[in-house]
Amino acid sequence: MQPDHPSSGIDRRAVVSTLALLPALCATLLPASAQAQMAQGGQLPSWNEGAAKQAILDFVRTTVDRSSPSYVAPDERIAVFDQDGTLWVEHPMYTQVIYCLERVPAVVAKKPELKDVEPFKTVLSGNREAMARLSLRELEQILAATLTGMSTEEFRAEARKWLETARNPRWNRPYTELAYQPMLEVLQYMRDNGYKTYIVTGGGQDFVRVYAEKVYGIPPEQVVGTAGGTKFGYGNDGRPFLMKEPKLLLNDDKAGKPEGIHLMIGRKPTAAFGNSAGDREMLEWIGAGAGARLKMLLLHDDDKREYAYGPAQGLPDTKVGTFPQALYDEAKKNGWYVISMKNDWKRIFAFEREARAE
Amino acid sequence: MQPDHPSSGIDRRAVVSTLALLPALCATLLPASAQAQMAQGGQLPSWNEGAAKQAILDFVRTTVDRSSPSYVAPDERIAVFDQDGTLWVEHPMYTQVIYCLERVPAVVAKKPELKDVEPFKTVLSGNREAMARLSLRELEQILAATLTGMSTEEFRAEARKWLETARNPRWNRPYTELAYQPMLEVLQYMRDNGYKTYIVTGGGQDFVRVYAEKVYGIPPEQVVGTAGGTKFGYGNDGRPFLMKEPKLLLNDDKAGKPEGIHLMIGRKPTAAFGNSAGDREMLEWIGAGAGARLKMLLLHDDDKREYAYGPAQGLPDTKVGTFPQALYDEAKKNGWYVISMKNDWKRIFAFEREARAE
Repeated sequence: MQPDHPSSGIDRRAVVSTLALLPALCATLLPASAQAQMAQGGQLPSWNEGAAKQAILDFVRTTVDRSSPSYVAPDERIAVFDQDGTLWVEHPMYTQVIYCLERVPAVVAKKPELKDVEPFKTVLSGNREAMARLSLRELEQILAATLTGMSTEEFRAEARKWLETARNPRWNRPYTELAYQPMLEVLQYMRDNGYKTYIVTGGGQDFVRVYAEKVYGIPPEQVVGTAGGTKFGYGNDGRPFLMKEPKLLLNDDKAGKPEGIHLMIGRKPTAAFGNSAGDREMLEWIGAGAGARLKMLLLHDDDKREYAYGPAQGLPDTKVGTFPQALYDEAKKNGWYVISMKNDWKRIFAFEREARAE
Repeated sequence: MQPDHPSSGIDRRAVVSTLALLPALCATLLPASAQAQMAQGGQLPSWNEGAAKQAILDFVRTTVDRSSPSYVAPDERIAVFDQDGTLWVEHPMYTQVIYCLERVPAVVAKKPELKDVEPFKTVLSGNREAMARLSLRELEQILAATLTGMSTEEFRAEARKWLETARNPRWNRPYTELAYQPMLEVLQYMRDNGYKTYIVTGGGQDFVRVYAEKVYGIPPEQVVGTAGGTKFGYGNDGRPFLMKEPKLLLNDDKAGKPEGIHLMIGRKPTAAFGNSAGDREMLEWIGAGAGARLKMLLLHDDDKREYAYGPAQGLPDTKVGTFPQALYDEAKKNGWYVISMKNDWKRIFAFEREARAE
């Protein structure tokens, strides 16, 4: 499942020989955190040994080693991660879409005139087959009704409350527990080595910001996502607030991802992780730059522990997470790594580990 | 020039008495950087003693002291600073507008058909009086022609080159040396105490990002400004790049400032510095929140060392930096501090200090 990556073996050999020749020098030059990790061993414990794990370790080690030609100054260490399907489960439906659908009754309670109006009527019926047939335009109407028309504080409070109580039916766990443990380890490993980690998601920026710090250790200001406008105004009590408006500022998907990174971060990251055609332009753009670059795509090929969909490598095509064969071929051609969930990951979720320990 | 601030004296007394009662405890609880600074004394050396300096010191000390009721967790320590007229000179014309005017000959060299077209013709004439009469619409045409229609990399290279060679005529110094030394000290003091410092400017985000790290120690991702869209595409060599488009995404002025902060930072800062009516909504919004808040406005009342304009307190009204009397009155009413450049600042620029040492 791994594309051949011509530079991988060479980089490793270069690092190994450098370390062999100059152990004292390297110990001085490497940051304390990196030294501690090397001594400790066992980085990325939920990853199987293989080209994907090695690529991450090699990239980080060579970019934090001052004696390496690939050295990157701490300020420039920026890594970006798609969220849905890359950091947590996206199948069979994006969590935010589930949130919006489940918010419809509350919206209709406040605006009873919507009760008999489509698409709200279909959502209220609970008929999942009919809901699956909703058009993109109808879905947008639902998103607008449930994500806008309230203050930023109201939205945050509502989303937080839902996240605390909602459960994913397959695992019977809060959605926030469906983050991929191997990716949480990558986030932490990169931060331990001075990387600033960002989420760059097609999902709603305000939604992801509600839980990103708790789930991923990523603060709100490091979440780039699809963003709507807000409107400053004063409440009846004269208190200023921001109202969420149904006005799209940034569609953070496909070409919108590099555009969003430029808008929100203002410089090019050197590492990017994605899992679908929506991440293609981001990986291409990040790849077009001098110095070391890490570009990785996660292939969902594990129908036992999670899901298998694609349709790269003959996996079934589905509505979410389109990883077409053409993207797989582009990855192979350009030296991007494809992570096989089935082969590269020892475990998928943190709670699996707990289960084993029980 | 200082508004009475009812809580200032109380906060100070509370801190002083806490320190007197619990010196050992406080030493343990305060961050090492804060301890070092308190031992060192002489914070904000370019500030005269007074209510403004004391307000900054009190705010920082009480929000980093774990035993204080105003304690703020490190993650939430976010301070925002307007740029033009708050961090550096804005009079008689914004530096970015000077950049755009001075770029016109290069633009016309590439597009000779603009030579005899207004407003380019007037700018090329060098007639400063005629240029001062350009309408807002004409100015926008010049901004669009000089800030868009090129790749983000080309723009960065051009702006960097200009900043290295252009000189402010009054001081005969690069514009980047016209940052206010007292404000550079505030930025550093707040960062030393765990505050993340952001610029929130009506100026162009891409322009300010070119020099913000060098001049202010503020990285590109912590610059929020007026932002245009970019468009992802591929060059003739197949290399992906972003083209700067003449499409306004965020007008980061007045109500656009809190809206821009929500878009780019995603949470409410607790400290804000500005100098004009363009900062009013930002200060109001930041003031509307629980816990300690620091809101400060810089009054340009020093026509000898810099400029005096306002028209608060009877200073002359000018095209840039409108600080109306109504804003001054709102500041007094709401406990915002007004910094008097004339009375609160020992020196304005870093090079003044060099001059004394010579």
